[in-house]
Amino acid sequence: MCRGDDANCPQFELHYRAFREDLDHERRGFLKSSFVAAGGIATLGAAGASLVTPALAQATAAKSPAVPKSHYLPANADTVHWGYFSKSLKPRVEVDSGDIVTIETLTHHANDDAERMVEGDPGAESVFLWTKDKKGVDRRGAGPTDPKVYKKGSGEGQGVHVMTGPVYVRGAEPGDVLEVRILDCVPRPCANPKFKGKAFGSNAAAWWGYHYNDMLSEKREVVTIYEVDAAGAKSWAQAVYNFKWVPQTDPFGVVHETIDYPGVPVDHAKTSRNFDVLKGVRVPIRPHFGTLGLAPSEVEFVDTIPPNYVGGNIDNWRIGKGATMYYPVAVEGGLLSVGDPHASQGDSELCGTAIECSLTGVFQLVLHKKGDLAGTPLEELNYPMLETKDEWLVHGFSFANYLKELGAEAQSAIYGKSSVDLAMRDAFRKMRHFLMTTQKLTEDEATSLMSIGVDFGVTQVVDGNWGVHAVVKKAIFAGRA
Amino acid sequence: MCRGDDANCPQFELHYRAFREDLDHERRGFLKSSFVAAGGIATLGAAGASLVTPALAQATAAKSPAVPKSHYLPANADTVHWGYFSKSLKPRVEVDSGDIVTIETLTHHANDDAERMVEGDPGAESVFLWTKDKKGVDRRGAGPTDPKVYKKGSGEGQGVHVMTGPVYVRGAEPGDVLEVRILDCVPRPCANPKFKGKAFGSNAAAWWGYHYNDMLSEKREVVTIYEVDAAGAKSWAQAVYNFKWVPQTDPFGVVHETIDYPGVPVDHAKTSRNFDVLKGVRVPIRPHFGTLGLAPSEVEFVDTIPPNYVGGNIDNWRIGKGATMYYPVAVEGGLLSVGDPHASQGDSELCGTAIECSLTGVFQLVLHKKGDLAGTPLEELNYPMLETKDEWLVHGFSFANYLKELGAEAQSAIYGKSSVDLAMRDAFRKMRHFLMTTQKLTEDEATSLMSIGVDFGVTQVVDGNWGVHAVVKKAIFAGRA
Repeated sequence: MCRGDDANCPQFELHYRAFREDLDHERRGFLKSSFVAAGGIATLGAAGASLVTPALAQATAAKSPAVPKSHYLPANADTVHWGYFSKSLKPRVEVDSGDIVTIETLTHHANDDAERMVEGDPGAESVFLWTKDKKGVDRRGAGPTDPKVYKKGSGEGQGVHVMTGPVYVRGAEPGDVLEVRILDCVPRPCANPKFKGKAFGSNAAAWWGYHYNDMLSEKREVVTIYEVDAAGAKSWAQAVYNFKWVPQTDPFGVVHETIDYPGVPVDHAKTSRNFDVLKGVRVPIRPHFGTLGLAPSEVEFVDTIPPNYVGGNIDNWRIGKGATMYYPVAVEGGLLSVGDPHASQGDSELCGTAIECSLTGVFQLVLHKKGDLAGTPLEELNYPMLETKDEWLVHGFSFANYLKELGAEAQSAIYGKSSVDLAMRDAFRKMRHFLMTTQKLTEDEATSLMSIGVDFGVTQVVDGNWGVHAVVKKAIFAGRA
Repeated sequence: MCRGDDANCPQFELHYRAFREDLDHERRGFLKSSFVAAGGIATLGAAGASLVTPALAQATAAKSPAVPKSHYLPANADTVHWGYFSKSLKPRVEVDSGDIVTIETLTHHANDDAERMVEGDPGAESVFLWTKDKKGVDRRGAGPTDPKVYKKGSGEGQGVHVMTGPVYVRGAEPGDVLEVRILDCVPRPCANPKFKGKAFGSNAAAWWGYHYNDMLSEKREVVTIYEVDAAGAKSWAQAVYNFKWVPQTDPFGVVHETIDYPGVPVDHAKTSRNFDVLKGVRVPIRPHFGTLGLAPSEVEFVDTIPPNYVGGNIDNWRIGKGATMYYPVAVEGGLLSVGDPHASQGDSELCGTAIECSLTGVFQLVLHKKGDLAGTPLEELNYPMLETKDEWLVHGFSFANYLKELGAEAQSAIYGKSSVDLAMRDAFRKMRHFLMTTQKLTEDEATSLMSIGVDFGVTQVVDGNWGVHAVVKKAIFAGRA
């Protein structure tokens, strides 16, 4: 039986409805959210302002099936790839432009507390399975897979995110733009009956955090487990407990002195849990996908950590429900993958992680063909662009395309070149380009407007290729002819 | 007759009321704003959360007069100092803790369009007066005042802001904290009958802007004049015209090839004005004071451009109506000065200036004595802290106290050391300190919270000592015991 993800199945509609209902009952109601009734491809945003012109929408619609199909991509050991993007990955689902895909994502930090984030959840259990003989997903990272070479484990943890996908978009070719509308984004409830109706996430203040070499007392990694209210009555998360990382021996016998390989099961017999943590502190939730993007063309296996021109680990908390991303397509089919789900994060993601919490998203994928982009705001897009109801955002990085700019050693070199200053420079140039191309401003107009009406913020300082975003409000242009 | 600024005048109350009414009719109504009825010293913020504990408020109130007095400090050649802070300046008004001071401020860019920003306004005319024989305010900047030494003009433009003040707070001593509540902040209407009911500002995309060495075509300085709606019906500014800076000869005969000295009258017979600029673009207004702070103790004359531990040119647009600043007092009397008024600015102030627009502010100054700070959130304050209704913000700089850190040549050295990376590091450390001292979090709790509930943004990249601010919402702590 298809799980509602095979449009060719004679009973597809029935199966898909079953999945929707399943999701509705088990996972949703959550946050009093509801599935957005997805409009047609030509639907404009709420404000009526979109980077997709009516003419482009029409051209795109003409190339897309009249009725969007729905797909469901669960997260399990067969549907995820761990720690890397790759243009060579076999698609897990194929869609047409305009189709809607529900995608489950799992946090790679679930094994920080398996009782709360893995147990009783078949999908998570299949992914995090790790016995002395077998791993549910062996390769974790873009690094070496030869046991004679790696030290920590297959893939060497060079890239850490559990990515669901890829999704193959039929007809997508390099030069096209893929529009990804996030119709919904909800936490994945804990499957362990002991914690019924709750959801959990993990925040690791880790060795790659911005604070790590600048601590007031001895260096340590500290993991804090957070709970998100599953009844939907509260819009905040609260800490449950924290613990200092102590060396953990994985089922294959490798000792992990630090958090150096994803998915290592934490043995809490060895940790000391402190439940007197952040008492009364309420963290506003901002559910979003830390890592969402397409496969790059430059390299066969790409570490998921540094964000890049085709998106990936941008770690902007605004990439949640209601947001739309635009990506330049670099390889055939685009190959969209989603992971690194977050319940909340601040601008900077200072300590190295957010509240890492499994989420399920509903995405509508719209393919704009290169030939239709001329003269539209998307014509010269060569960076990942974010559109919310009220704002447009560009993402600057220390290196706009580090894979191309830093040569053969790019994937290791990038970590030595992290810089907010460089990301600010890139964000400035991208915002200028955005204002000049999409709003048809002169350079002088764009320069003045950037100083008085555009806000620059620090996206993250922990992903190798550091990020600064620039935000401009759509309302600024509402009075234009 | 006193102008309502001398509490010892037998007719002070009458004179002050006259000023208030004058202001009400001529300058206000503007933006449908109204003078906030200032509460007593012990009044808490709207949210009930303030860095001033009830005990501290009580101790402070006990040391302050029971009834706050009101003062009025107009802006004219006698009440401003231009381009520098100095611990040696003669106070323009003396106040007690709890007093309310209305302070006029003038933008140093008014002479970019004297017709719209100077003419008919006696205060502005007295400040910007410049004939072949006389300048209304001769010294402009912390630089040399010896005509044999300076090249551009007295003070050499090493510091550019027209600062009204200083205000001497009786009893203020090093180690105390001065709380500055901004009760109101309104634009100064144009005094030229030709533009009745309007207000204007200037945005200069100048050689010190972040964009300048990174332009797409030839380097140029471009000034854009903006209009703010004076009827209060619109919450946005719009461009009137722009012009490229061409060499301007000042009345003393010095040629200014670039914008290198403040207050040079622009001769529009030599410029080419382009009125086809930013058509239909509406810039949301955010009236605020770019430069507000106390005199530092380290040096006699201090350039107003780089912000510092006692505040100054922080250039955060949130320092407007309803905001409260807390400053460590460095010299006797504190010596508060205000200037660099802005109608709007984005986070980064990218091109070098905001919409530079004269404003009038109403400030309540509350002095917290060192002896009362022990055990309160203000105890270890050694940086300028911003509190709004809903948020607390710390300000990181490339150098927290550049005057002390960079030695004898600090005032020139700072411009060669501008860095967002360093400002981010300082903002991180200050926010950690803030959370640990004011919210009594452990280092591990503060580190986790910074990653998931604190937003870091780029304040400015144009003031030598570059800035990154960190924002935390008060509501995060609303559930604490």
